[in-house]
Amino acid sequence: MRTSQYLLSTLKETPASAEVISHQLMLRAGLVRNVASGLYTWLPTGLKVLKKVENIVREEMQRAGSNEVLMPMVQPADLWEESGRLNDYGPELLRLNDRHNRDFVLGPTHEEVITKLVANELSSYKQLPLNVFQIQTKFRDEIRPRFGVMRGREFLMKDAYTFHLEHECLEKTYQKMFDAYCRIFDRLGLDYRPVIADTGSIGGDASHEFHVLADSGEDDIAFSDASDFAANVEKAEALAPSGEREEPSKDIELVELKLERLIKTTDTPLNASVKTLLVQGTATDDESEKFVALVLRGDHQLNEVKAENLPSVASPLTLATEEQISALVNCHSTSLGPKGLSVEVIVDRSAAHLSDFTCGANENNRSYTGVNWQRDCGDITVADIRNVVEGDPSPCGKGNIVIKRGIEVGHIFQLGQKYAEAMNCAVLNEGGKNQTLTMGCYGIGVSRIVAAAIEQNHDKYGIKWPKAIAPFQAAIVPMNMAKSARVKETAESLYEQLLQDGVEVLFDDRKERPGVMFADHELMGTPLLLIVGERNLDEKKVELKNRITGEKTLIAIEDVKALFSN
Amino acid sequence: MRTSQYLLSTLKETPASAEVISHQLMLRAGLVRNVASGLYTWLPTGLKVLKKVENIVREEMQRAGSNEVLMPMVQPADLWEESGRLNDYGPELLRLNDRHNRDFVLGPTHEEVITKLVANELSSYKQLPLNVFQIQTKFRDEIRPRFGVMRGREFLMKDAYTFHLEHECLEKTYQKMFDAYCRIFDRLGLDYRPVIADTGSIGGDASHEFHVLADSGEDDIAFSDASDFAANVEKAEALAPSGEREEPSKDIELVELKLERLIKTTDTPLNASVKTLLVQGTATDDESEKFVALVLRGDHQLNEVKAENLPSVASPLTLATEEQISALVNCHSTSLGPKGLSVEVIVDRSAAHLSDFTCGANENNRSYTGVNWQRDCGDITVADIRNVVEGDPSPCGKGNIVIKRGIEVGHIFQLGQKYAEAMNCAVLNEGGKNQTLTMGCYGIGVSRIVAAAIEQNHDKYGIKWPKAIAPFQAAIVPMNMAKSARVKETAESLYEQLLQDGVEVLFDDRKERPGVMFADHELMGTPLLLIVGERNLDEKKVELKNRITGEKTLIAIEDVKALFSN
Repeated sequence: MRTSQYLLSTLKETPASAEVISHQLMLRAGLVRNVASGLYTWLPTGLKVLKKVENIVREEMQRAGSNEVLMPMVQPADLWEESGRLNDYGPELLRLNDRHNRDFVLGPTHEEVITKLVANELSSYKQLPLNVFQIQTKFRDEIRPRFGVMRGREFLMKDAYTFHLEHECLEKTYQKMFDAYCRIFDRLGLDYRPVIADTGSIGGDASHEFHVLADSGEDDIAFSDASDFAANVEKAEALAPSGEREEPSKDIELVELKLERLIKTTDTPLNASVKTLLVQGTATDDESEKFVALVLRGDHQLNEVKAENLPSVASPLTLATEEQISALVNCHSTSLGPKGLSVEVIVDRSAAHLSDFTCGANENNRSYTGVNWQRDCGDITVADIRNVVEGDPSPCGKGNIVIKRGIEVGHIFQLGQKYAEAMNCAVLNEGGKNQTLTMGCYGIGVSRIVAAAIEQNHDKYGIKWPKAIAPFQAAIVPMNMAKSARVKETAESLYEQLLQDGVEVLFDDRKERPGVMFADHELMGTPLLLIVGERNLDEKKVELKNRITGEKTLIAIEDVKALFSN
Repeated sequence: MRTSQYLLSTLKETPASAEVISHQLMLRAGLVRNVASGLYTWLPTGLKVLKKVENIVREEMQRAGSNEVLMPMVQPADLWEESGRLNDYGPELLRLNDRHNRDFVLGPTHEEVITKLVANELSSYKQLPLNVFQIQTKFRDEIRPRFGVMRGREFLMKDAYTFHLEHECLEKTYQKMFDAYCRIFDRLGLDYRPVIADTGSIGGDASHEFHVLADSGEDDIAFSDASDFAANVEKAEALAPSGEREEPSKDIELVELKLERLIKTTDTPLNASVKTLLVQGTATDDESEKFVALVLRGDHQLNEVKAENLPSVASPLTLATEEQISALVNCHSTSLGPKGLSVEVIVDRSAAHLSDFTCGANENNRSYTGVNWQRDCGDITVADIRNVVEGDPSPCGKGNIVIKRGIEVGHIFQLGQKYAEAMNCAVLNEGGKNQTLTMGCYGIGVSRIVAAAIEQNHDKYGIKWPKAIAPFQAAIVPMNMAKSARVKETAESLYEQLLQDGVEVLFDDRKERPGVMFADHELMGTPLLLIVGERNLDEKKVELKNRITGEKTLIAIEDVKALFSN
């Protein structure tokens, strides 16, 4: 492509509206343009990247035996009524009426359409398992679209759905899809991690997120520094510290200081103290059983999801009010401690490993030092109720936890029978009886990957595309073509030759200063620049500049072709 | 792909809802399924065809130098307000509100979005001409969706837009696009014709439709039998018959018969008579100038568009009422004739070529025979006001007109400045002044092509795909695989080998009777069947059946690969 026939549209200034670097660079490099809040037009450079991502995703889904289909974006609302999600989904589900005033939605996802289809088309277990996917535009009416295509309203997604008679079969397919996802992100050239995820509101049995690692990511991910273990921080198990708990060596002592003051003024380390939270319990018959105490080491954070999953803790997690605490313990929340409480005391594994620790005394402005669990506090329950932190032993058994930030670009679920049951998706099994199917679903945010790739791969000059998704493989940049016939001829013939060889090359035939051209190509992240200048032509050479390494070398024109030979 | 892992979904019965053969076959062969009125899911077999069509369209648009972009399907209504089409477009434009109650439309076409984009991005004539296209889902809220994907509501379209400073440049690009369209339909393997079209309501200077020829087509197209001339019947020029008009040889005679009776009872040929229509004129000052008479040969049909384009005829064309005719001529409309009328008489070229003709006498139940124009009727205007018919001389000057039916699958327009003016799309010209651009637009109905291809290529057994868009290149059909290990091994190894060679092959590994398998593959239109049977294996051969020719031959297994070698 010649720039003179191309919609290049780079910007010198960073648009004020763009908060994150990927959005800034996508606007500046001419990848997308905003049409309305959360709605974008993909310009040629951006669409080239999007299509490359899409093609890699498609090829690997097909290789994994998935059948490509295409479902409509406009879906009848009655399907969503049938699944029970029409009202549950919330205002991100955009509803509309056609000219006959029938109800439709713009599809944010396609579980309903595909489950209905499979319910109609399949009749026998012999047709199972079935694996289908589509790459289709989705619409979610985000209340505050932001970060460009990272959280847009109309976006491109790959969504796959699998159907099985038995859970074991779903597990096998799930592993196959997991492997396909790894191949996809490997081929995209991104630094990513599959992460054990909370299944959240979709329900089901197992779930992994795929995250592209980037400092600007919205999610915290816990890794092992010695294995491939990775989990969302909310989901990662916090193990007990290794070794036996030390025996008590101090006597318990009451101190006339608030716990917070005690820690500050006596240099008691935070991790040798515990903090105590009073929360609502699930039992209601006895006044004291209405509440539960949660105890954590002073330097740790409560993990609400883990706490909510305990049988005696109410969900959603609800802290006791100061009035409730006063009524039960007669002190302020900041003076709570595990000794002498009349409610169940649930102690985090790390807090339970302490001896001779410091805590509140359940009296205002008084604390204890030298406390020991069995000796001083009676019966306790030990559980994992905190977020992991860096340096924790990894729950996989190897190495320690490191925490990094990630951008979620894929999510796979073992869905189970939720949709199949609601929409009556069943087949005759080997015994001739109707059996409800069990399902998996597997999403990849195709347009989001483009933004995530930029968040991970950029410098102050612009984008540094991974090879597999660069919009062009190379650009030819002639120096002063207007003044040198030799430069023009060489550049033109190099361009024609590379085109014939099937190289995706951009020929910068604008009448611009070299500085302007270089800045544009660095901004756009073209991996290789072939600079055609008068001074190297006697030697029949051009200058080769590598966008990733910054390296400049001279290369014989006849050797250029070989750069693209694999 | 193995049928056991594939969503085959063929139907034995023809669904009652499907009116046209392509819709019937698309349902029966498992290409699409209906989700709601005018909304379809493309099943794997259908999507393979759709993608092949899409890829050919994309490749040829790129080869013609067009830049691919992707515009959002959901468009802000204010863009349509700006172009003036928000209310003009009618109820096919589906309107919706987002959660903040802002107005949007589902894009039925993208002139507004692209014109606005180009108005914002381009500043100089140096960036022209610009050629962009997209392949994107469109939505038109048809009042009565029918014929399956032929007239669906959500459908896939390729739409291209070009921008120019001068009309000459638009004309050059228009020709380039015309050529690209011909390459596209050539590659698709369809019998098609580019057809001179009326520009209809879009306006502009020139326009061609591309029609796939099929008996079931909705449009009549006039061809020359000796050149590549083709035009929509409404648009084709009707020439005067060749040769000089014959001199009068009869005297005019008043006959006491209504024209209709006269023709029936005396064997006067229809084409030796004329019929006369009184329509409203454009002049209003004089009572007699309020009307105009249109005269056609008895066997010809008035072309309303041609008549409306005459300066003295009112548009839209409006016939005079019987009351108006009585007041002016004192007879019934069926007795009108050109002799002695007090209004302008506009005579079609073919009627004007008659001599000694028969016509109404402007008195009830009376006619004239032996009428001649100059001698009997005074001043007349001669014009082309009829539809062409088969046998007419072609307006290109070569051969005669043949009329066939076609399905419109493409349409190209020289749009002019309509949108550029409304949306202020201008650049600085060489003189440094702002100049409004002139535009072309170019559509192809990608999903419609799939249906049109079937309308043109089928027999009683099913679809006969052109090679370039067949969902599979071949199918392997083993005979009694369950009972013969040799058949199973051969079929499996042939399948693996063809897969490795990159052949798109469907391996029918179902436990079905041969008859069921053959019927499915004929229905789906797989071009080649490779039938693996016990009786040919001693000779290391398989049977090859050609779907198009019906021919069956034996072929050595080692020669199968060569069938797909180009």
